[in-house]
Amino acid sequence: MSVLVVGSIALDSVETPFGKADHVLGGSGTFFSASASHLTPVQLVGVVGNDYPLDQLQPLAKRGVDLAGVEQADGPSFRWRGRYRHDLNSAETLETHLGVFSHFAPKIPAQFREAPFVFLANIDPRLQLQVLDQVEKPTLVACDTMNFWIESRRPELLELFAKVDMVLLNDGEARQLTEKTNLVHAAKWILERGPKYVIIKKGEHGAFMFSADSVFYAPAYPLENIFDPTGAGDSFAGGFIGYLARTGDLGEANMRRAVIYGSAMGSFAVEQFSIGRLLDVTRDDIDRRVREFRQLVSFETELAEQGA
Amino acid sequence: MSVLVVGSIALDSVETPFGKADHVLGGSGTFFSASASHLTPVQLVGVVGNDYPLDQLQPLAKRGVDLAGVEQADGPSFRWRGRYRHDLNSAETLETHLGVFSHFAPKIPAQFREAPFVFLANIDPRLQLQVLDQVEKPTLVACDTMNFWIESRRPELLELFAKVDMVLLNDGEARQLTEKTNLVHAAKWILERGPKYVIIKKGEHGAFMFSADSVFYAPAYPLENIFDPTGAGDSFAGGFIGYLARTGDLGEANMRRAVIYGSAMGSFAVEQFSIGRLLDVTRDDIDRRVREFRQLVSFETELAEQGA
Repeated sequence: MSVLVVGSIALDSVETPFGKADHVLGGSGTFFSASASHLTPVQLVGVVGNDYPLDQLQPLAKRGVDLAGVEQADGPSFRWRGRYRHDLNSAETLETHLGVFSHFAPKIPAQFREAPFVFLANIDPRLQLQVLDQVEKPTLVACDTMNFWIESRRPELLELFAKVDMVLLNDGEARQLTEKTNLVHAAKWILERGPKYVIIKKGEHGAFMFSADSVFYAPAYPLENIFDPTGAGDSFAGGFIGYLARTGDLGEANMRRAVIYGSAMGSFAVEQFSIGRLLDVTRDDIDRRVREFRQLVSFETELAEQGA
Repeated sequence: MSVLVVGSIALDSVETPFGKADHVLGGSGTFFSASASHLTPVQLVGVVGNDYPLDQLQPLAKRGVDLAGVEQADGPSFRWRGRYRHDLNSAETLETHLGVFSHFAPKIPAQFREAPFVFLANIDPRLQLQVLDQVEKPTLVACDTMNFWIESRRPELLELFAKVDMVLLNDGEARQLTEKTNLVHAAKWILERGPKYVIIKKGEHGAFMFSADSVFYAPAYPLENIFDPTGAGDSFAGGFIGYLARTGDLGEANMRRAVIYGSAMGSFAVEQFSIGRLLDVTRDDIDRRVREFRQLVSFETELAEQGA
């Protein structure tokens, strides 16, 4: 089944302790699409300026990302410049130029409106709500957000939460939004506002998936070489939602597997700048990493498994 | 099989966002013993001053902690005063009075010298080496350390590493010691210096166990109420080494189970001040939490498990 994603399509300039890259493909919609397209067809909606190297999106198109919803507007593309120092968990933003993204009003092409899976990447919650008005009863809607919207669009964000099935956000955002230090309390707070699932991403410390009656935890893969953390969260979302869309199974066991696929895709994303690694990873690589995750956490109890 | 532990026996005064406790039982030897004694007989070696409430150690004695190696010296006991603010992962030390601990020279009672399992808790590496001179070919020796010794006793610490089977330390200490940001690199650096296993504890973010050819990860249990993090690391060590001593099995599968027992004991330790929760937890509680850990991380792949 296909996934519709609405998000940013940017040009990133990134400096890490290991090198730098200028004006490379970035943005939540781009990372999500590059990741999810390994698992399922993707429909991307976003806006770029007339300076955008559209030809560089062609590898995505070849892998099943439908770019019919990528609008090219008059003006400069969204550009972000950031730096990571030793703490690869937090980016220092040096420059943000919204360009044509500041007037973005998502228009969902008619042929995308029945997408069964919808991911509302990190954009203004008012736009995320506008997308929901344009789609027909999806099987699952998930959204991401960020500190800026938590501060400036809190009522709209909570209105959105009441309409989605799942919220993905990082630990700092969860604490900021809920004003709760403890992540279990933060997750409960969010679940009480509508979503059936909350995924709290902790960067190099893994991710939790909470529902009303279960909690699942997946570590981040202990990589020897983390090159550039940009896009890890959106690549996680792409692997996660992509796997759900591919299997069409929203049962607990499959949701857990999907989190591991998300973690695997996040772990590939950080191995190179931009979507470099996501473009050349193979389905075998992905399956191998999923098995490595199992090796990483698996243990057998000597106790009878009497329905813990 | 029994475990010999050499460490501090202190009086702690702790303030957390949830309350405060004054002059309560603390110290690495105390937490380790309280934790390990749920699984195996413990032999504790340490020193207290003539102001120490020895009667408060009696519950440990009743649970199989042999206190014959607890020396009472003339002078004040080791006292630590600390505070945790919102970040429960890092303590702010307000006062440290070493008292009789500053002249501690571990004397291992004759009847403890053949202990098959030895834990050298966080004390001066010169003293840790002195302990090794007094014991007879243990099956397994593990040691802990801290930032202070990494700075001031680096050569002695590395001499120790060449003589132990396992090193436990936290992520900050591992990075400080090895000057490597990446924990996989840090673990390899330590493994190259002698130990067969390195455990890197990440507080609320869980723990890694590295060997030359495997890596295992256990999360911290997502508790709703973390009351006081003091002693979590030593309680982890107590559960881990205690489980190994109880089973006498150093195979990979059992080592992994042992890490989970360590994580379970660490998760109990933080539920109350001092060793309060460790004293009243039951074997059923422990087994239940081990099963909850399994629920927390377990997932089935749909892939054939072709020997990842």
